[in-house]
Amino acid sequence: MKISVVKNIMEANQRIAEENRRRFQEHALMVINLMSSPGAGKTTLLEKTISLLKDDYKVGVVEGDIQSTYDAERIGRTGAPVVQINTGGACHLDSNMVQEALKNLEFQNLNLLFIENVGNLVCPAEFALGEDFKAMILSVAEGDDKPLKYPLMFRESSVLLINKIDLLPFCDCQPDLIEERALKINPRLTIFRVSCRTGEGLSRWTDWLRQRLPPRSRGKNSSEP
Amino acid sequence: MKISVVKNIMEANQRIAEENRRRFQEHALMVINLMSSPGAGKTTLLEKTISLLKDDYKVGVVEGDIQSTYDAERIGRTGAPVVQINTGGACHLDSNMVQEALKNLEFQNLNLLFIENVGNLVCPAEFALGEDFKAMILSVAEGDDKPLKYPLMFRESSVLLINKIDLLPFCDCQPDLIEERALKINPRLTIFRVSCRTGEGLSRWTDWLRQRLPPRSRGKNSSEP
Repeated sequence: MKISVVKNIMEANQRIAEENRRRFQEHALMVINLMSSPGAGKTTLLEKTISLLKDDYKVGVVEGDIQSTYDAERIGRTGAPVVQINTGGACHLDSNMVQEALKNLEFQNLNLLFIENVGNLVCPAEFALGEDFKAMILSVAEGDDKPLKYPLMFRESSVLLINKIDLLPFCDCQPDLIEERALKINPRLTIFRVSCRTGEGLSRWTDWLRQRLPPRSRGKNSSEP
Repeated sequence: MKISVVKNIMEANQRIAEENRRRFQEHALMVINLMSSPGAGKTTLLEKTISLLKDDYKVGVVEGDIQSTYDAERIGRTGAPVVQINTGGACHLDSNMVQEALKNLEFQNLNLLFIENVGNLVCPAEFALGEDFKAMILSVAEGDDKPLKYPLMFRESSVLLINKIDLLPFCDCQPDLIEERALKINPRLTIFRVSCRTGEGLSRWTDWLRQRLPPRSRGKNSSEP
């Protein structure tokens, strides 16, 4: 008998991710799996994005952390519905954790759901969650060599947000090099340079989201016919 | 029959780590397992540390990366002996990888060996390599909430280097909060605030190393009796 444990784990993850995806599609819900190193700015990006979209769309968040509810509390203060997953040590989210989390979130009423993954530039890229798009953030403080050293996440992502560009004058980081190296790995990557702190560049990112949100879902909860 | 795969993996790792440790001790070699998020400044810290210590000690490096030899090339330019481990996808080093790497490094002549782990604030903390000390770097650009969200590495480390303090005027990060939160998790943690870019604070870190290096190993390769 041939046993391949790793393959089975990944297959089970893929199967549950497809179940999640079908449920999201039933409700015309766009889902983004947001990944980055610790401290690259995932939660701040979500705070700002929610604020820019909330007049037109209902946005919810699944927060993934090893422990604590610190990030979910930050999101909760924006008024967006949020549920926290504590992985209890695991360094990434998997599709089953997300399926469990959905029991505690009224995602049926949402237009856009962000799943904020555990801060880790390596493992999250390997696990599909049922998302429409993977998006990643790289802070310029991390340096321009990251695509060379952590290529998988750049390959898997549809969007790269180069964040903290307000720090560029004080860092030895060339954003052109990040773009060049990232596009060599993944020529279809859409790249935005942003500062979640100052707000610079964020409207181009939210325009990208608006273009992809199902037009009919706009004003889903509006009282107008 | 009771099978516990995870326990066996961790036990095997521990056993090989002890073998590594015995070999290091035979040669009076101090070994530091250096961990951090991607881009917190591990390789730059090593470049600067080697430069500050090289007149008195022989320092070598084991470089851990998922792929590429970019960091090993940087270390090689300092003149220090270096060997690169490519984990091929794995998000942390384990003791067996280090044992293999030692075959390609003349560590018997060294006083101090740094093992630069894969950039990841989660998984490396779980795997002993045979080191004397674990040291971790946190960049102030990552934010002051990291001890709350990634406590294991703070708990396992003997030293915390708070790096990139030259960016403090431009970040929403309070280093006092990092220290307070880290010390609550691990009261025995030794903390240094440094800027590997400007060199600020690095002599306190190298003093800490000098105090712990075996005095007799000083000038190990000296021609004097």
